[in-house]
Amino acid sequence: MSHSPSQNHRHSEQDHHLQRKRIVNRLARIEGHVRSIKQMALDERDCGDLLIQVAAVRSALDNCGKLILKDHLEGCVMEAAKSGNEQEVLKQLEEALDKFIR
Amino acid sequence: MSHSPSQNHRHSEQDHHLQRKRIVNRLARIEGHVRSIKQMALDERDCGDLLIQVAAVRSALDNCGKLILKDHLEGCVMEAAKSGNEQEVLKQLEEALDKFIR
Repeated sequence: MSHSPSQNHRHSEQDHHLQRKRIVNRLARIEGHVRSIKQMALDERDCGDLLIQVAAVRSALDNCGKLILKDHLEGCVMEAAKSGNEQEVLKQLEEALDKFIR
Repeated sequence: MSHSPSQNHRHSEQDHHLQRKRIVNRLARIEGHVRSIKQMALDERDCGDLLIQVAAVRSALDNCGKLILKDHLEGCVMEAAKSGNEQEVLKQLEEALDKFIR
């Protein structure tokens, strides 16, 4: 996957992305969960069983999104405290919210 | 993963689960998409980029859920036409909706 232009103005991750390890772990668990639903579908399991699992993954994905947003928020706030440029930081936060909640 | 009691009163899948192959394909694509987001997180990619991809997976998952529901609906309607027991079929449909939409 190619890197997007937005990485050019990201804040330094080493300091700010404190939750990154937890986010990777959650995504790994979601990936495994989706794989197990795929197997259930292959095993001709009941639609109701599949729907319960799809709803569970959706909920896990929303929580993971919230964690990414929280991570971003922490980074933005730390950057604001350092740079004093709160207008730019607020703009970044709004952009992140727009990307996640449509 | 153990089989749930609900498979005992499922309708015969060979006839009714017409969308099953499409559902499996979509779940495989979603699984790959989640894996690529996990890799983005490992590569220290920007939070905004991650959020866009998480929102895309959520949307794909919702569409997959709709397809499962549609598959179930088709099976229920075919069963109703065969058995004439529309009360039982309507109950099954309501249960499926409750499982997916909370």
